[in-house]
Amino acid sequence: MYYPEQLAKLIESYQKLPGIGQKTATRLAFHTIGMADQDVNDFAANLLAAKRELQYCKICGNLASGEICEICSDPNRDKSQILVVEEIRDVTVFERVGEYHGLYHVLHGTISVFDNVTPDDINIKSLIRRLHDNIVQEIIIATNASSEGETTAMYLSRLIKPAGIKVTRLAHGLAVGSDIEYANEVTLIKAVENRQEI
Amino acid sequence: MYYPEQLAKLIESYQKLPGIGQKTATRLAFHTIGMADQDVNDFAANLLAAKRELQYCKICGNLASGEICEICSDPNRDKSQILVVEEIRDVTVFERVGEYHGLYHVLHGTISVFDNVTPDDINIKSLIRRLHDNIVQEIIIATNASSEGETTAMYLSRLIKPAGIKVTRLAHGLAVGSDIEYANEVTLIKAVENRQEI
Repeated sequence: MYYPEQLAKLIESYQKLPGIGQKTATRLAFHTIGMADQDVNDFAANLLAAKRELQYCKICGNLASGEICEICSDPNRDKSQILVVEEIRDVTVFERVGEYHGLYHVLHGTISVFDNVTPDDINIKSLIRRLHDNIVQEIIIATNASSEGETTAMYLSRLIKPAGIKVTRLAHGLAVGSDIEYANEVTLIKAVENRQEI
Repeated sequence: MYYPEQLAKLIESYQKLPGIGQKTATRLAFHTIGMADQDVNDFAANLLAAKRELQYCKICGNLASGEICEICSDPNRDKSQILVVEEIRDVTVFERVGEYHGLYHVLHGTISVFDNVTPDDINIKSLIRRLHDNIVQEIIIATNASSEGETTAMYLSRLIKPAGIKVTRLAHGLAVGSDIEYANEVTLIKAVENRQEI
């Protein structure tokens, strides 16, 4: 289909975003032409600012305005615990809850045989380096309860345990407030396996 | 949830796009940080270029690189026919088929009682101005077969017919290649109403 070059290029840019195909990209590009000048200028400026000024923390892989993120540079955090998550947004989930006071490590993905993601492709090497200082006493693995998340957790556990560091995994079981009737089978099995004395 | 200012602003910009809520905007913003520098720079440049260099044609409302679009400035188009569509992308649909050689008029919407869109809110006035030159002999209304599209078609017909200009509407009926079994009721009724001698 014929579009002016400027529109075709914008459609192309929108298509590079995850989950946005040609149809949606076209709709977004047409919408952009009709947006207020100020909004489009802001959009472009915000894209550049976020990309230029934000980077991954050199220590933990979290989002940072400088070289080291706010959490890693906070002297009040418990440096003996590292909670390992798949994505930066998982950090914000734990921070919102506010009950965890240790440090984080963001893997930026999971080991995946299907997608051909090997341990070298995700942020594991820098996690191992962090263990050398003998301050860390526990690694809490908080990858998702998917098969990739489980694979990654098992890999990390086997890699770290021999160094004499405690490795734990978030508990699996019934979600608080949920009905047993609607729980899936695997969750129910895990909930029975991990039952606790009351 | 806490995010660095640059990220929060980018999320805000993404949220101004149609159909993108806070969750998707957040996902897109995080993705942007991980994109190649070149892709983000291009994205920002393409946004600005499209917005600055493209505008609505002063005559028909179609997308134009200058004041007048390519179709309105083409001396080979049949200036006695104007095909009225709801959106710019409808123009590209007809142009792709390539069987229509007249001019277009883009309404940029439809009259809608629900959404409080009045005839003054869409591109109707400039359509009426185009009829004053006595060159136009037929207005072909190609609004969608929705209730808003029908309302708009009826409105335009009543407005234009008294000026002695022929007003037509795209035929409604069975889609070519479709099964009667799966046609919806209204389509079947229209198909019977508009039956033609063979």
